[in-house]
Amino acid sequence: MKTLTVDLGDRSYPIHIGQGLLNQPELVRPHVRGTQVMIVTNTTVAPLYLDKARALFDGFEVADVVLPDGEQYKNLDTLKLIFDALIEKRFDRKCTLVALGGGVIGDITGFAAASYQRGVNFIQIPTTLLAQVDSSVGGKTGVNHPRGKNMIGAFHQPQAVIIDTDTLDTLEDRQLSAGLAEVIKYGLIRDAEFFDYLEDHLLHLLARDKDQLAYAIERSCWNKAEVVAADEREAGQRALLNLGHTFGHAIEAGMGYGNWLHGEAIAAGMMQAGYMSKLMGDLTDDDLRRMADAFTTARLPIYPPDDMSPERFLELMAGDKKVQAGTIRLVLLKAIGKAYVTGDYPQELLLRTLQEWRKPA
Amino acid sequence: MKTLTVDLGDRSYPIHIGQGLLNQPELVRPHVRGTQVMIVTNTTVAPLYLDKARALFDGFEVADVVLPDGEQYKNLDTLKLIFDALIEKRFDRKCTLVALGGGVIGDITGFAAASYQRGVNFIQIPTTLLAQVDSSVGGKTGVNHPRGKNMIGAFHQPQAVIIDTDTLDTLEDRQLSAGLAEVIKYGLIRDAEFFDYLEDHLLHLLARDKDQLAYAIERSCWNKAEVVAADEREAGQRALLNLGHTFGHAIEAGMGYGNWLHGEAIAAGMMQAGYMSKLMGDLTDDDLRRMADAFTTARLPIYPPDDMSPERFLELMAGDKKVQAGTIRLVLLKAIGKAYVTGDYPQELLLRTLQEWRKPA
Repeated sequence: MKTLTVDLGDRSYPIHIGQGLLNQPELVRPHVRGTQVMIVTNTTVAPLYLDKARALFDGFEVADVVLPDGEQYKNLDTLKLIFDALIEKRFDRKCTLVALGGGVIGDITGFAAASYQRGVNFIQIPTTLLAQVDSSVGGKTGVNHPRGKNMIGAFHQPQAVIIDTDTLDTLEDRQLSAGLAEVIKYGLIRDAEFFDYLEDHLLHLLARDKDQLAYAIERSCWNKAEVVAADEREAGQRALLNLGHTFGHAIEAGMGYGNWLHGEAIAAGMMQAGYMSKLMGDLTDDDLRRMADAFTTARLPIYPPDDMSPERFLELMAGDKKVQAGTIRLVLLKAIGKAYVTGDYPQELLLRTLQEWRKPA
Repeated sequence: MKTLTVDLGDRSYPIHIGQGLLNQPELVRPHVRGTQVMIVTNTTVAPLYLDKARALFDGFEVADVVLPDGEQYKNLDTLKLIFDALIEKRFDRKCTLVALGGGVIGDITGFAAASYQRGVNFIQIPTTLLAQVDSSVGGKTGVNHPRGKNMIGAFHQPQAVIIDTDTLDTLEDRQLSAGLAEVIKYGLIRDAEFFDYLEDHLLHLLARDKDQLAYAIERSCWNKAEVVAADEREAGQRALLNLGHTFGHAIEAGMGYGNWLHGEAIAAGMMQAGYMSKLMGDLTDDDLRRMADAFTTARLPIYPPDDMSPERFLELMAGDKKVQAGTIRLVLLKAIGKAYVTGDYPQELLLRTLQEWRKPA
């Protein structure tokens, strides 16, 4: 087992990574403050891991709430189901919420923990690769609004994150690939050496080699933890984590939440950002080819959906959270392993990107 | 004009108190971070003060959302109306929310500001005495759940609070009295000298003497600011501010939100706490009489509703936020001006209080 610490002063917390961690109650029990534990999961994960998760908290008053599965349920109405369950069981302000599932479960449970009685304890047990390398690190929680992703939420750090790589055994291939999109992202934004490693090991990761998965998860979490520790509230550096996300969020919203997976949308979005970086004169054709090869090897899309016009992109991107007073801020690449944020680019290059980086007819 | 500062390190903020402050843009403008201002108010306050409030932000992009008036609308559905308005107008994460109204508007707008895009700026312009002395100070925000008050929320400090005592000219008598319940509370919990002052000046306050009102508001805010600065997250001392609230919340919930005003409910609740403190051997009959006289002078109820049985009280109190693992924690009085929190009292005395402190038949 590997343990990383996310260094946030008095809100620091450990991330444990390894096999069989769902059989190790000693990892989670020190992080339960009161006597009441509410496990939040979904209809896909519950049959697989809910019993194991409940057993981790043997001796506490354990309850659970099983939500419908899917990004389309990451909204205020589903959030309310968690509050209803907590109030129904008379859970007090010393209770602990446990998120057992993917990114949607982590985000919505985290926001419930941030706002139930103005804040209760929170433990994350992410069961998808995406959640393990992304949404379980950094304290961002929230739900979607019909007109924009993650528009409503809070910064709320967990007490601990438990990543049991065995849970990846039951993950659909498509979800595994979606998680690799975020893994590749860390290489692209700040860790060229990791990108080199991934070019050689993506096939091992797709084959679910546990040692390689643990390494890739650890290095991804380490990268994210470094960024978050330097910039908890996203004033600066943290925005780099959004590479491909402004494009990708537009795809997710435009196609209807849940149709394109988040990882699929940001893979195409990272290629759009890469193409624009080439137009800006920073990436080479070879860089772009390496990116496309990596995403293709990971079985991810590299082009946006055919039926989303440049105009539709612009409309949706203008509604994104990262817009500041009308300017669409983008994360672009100076090189593989070196991202930057800018609102100062020729508008024409964004338009050309939306027009030109499309699946060849 | 008087200015108090709530001392919370880098989240410190000023409270300005005086007449005509709604005509002084220089008080609010330094606290607007971006270019977009959303004023949240209700159907009662909008016709009276919305134009004035909009004029304060002349030169910014100002929008408003007018909510229905009443505690029964302090819920997730109404909160959603604020998010809808913000997203409709494409307000970004540098926007500023302004709460123009009473405690409900302050609480719900504050929670919207805490959670829109994971936190935006927030200015409070409380227009009721209750909001001026209570909900505008301390950063507690939130909405009710059908089964419990303020169950969902966040701690989110405003950038500034503007208390224009002229707004009290349009306040209904019943609302003015309800505000006085919180004013009297500060005397009871920690400021015996202020309680003495109130015994002599309640009639001036009811007659809306502006100088006396400004003094009473300032002293109330000063008391609350002291408590909050010492204990922002309600680990200890801050709980004293809940004198009468566990009983009072049960009354509000039991009678249906909006039927008893918050101030009315906690006045009766403080008398219940006072009676129990007498049973505990701490308050004298004379203390209890002074309390009852003060509330009666302020035109507030001193007895709980006839039709709420002790059993109903216990049921509702057990669901209150201040319950920890089954124990109903209460704020009681050692003396006038000296409150304490306890979960360690003879259950029988709570029962006797619920049975005996009732309106004589």
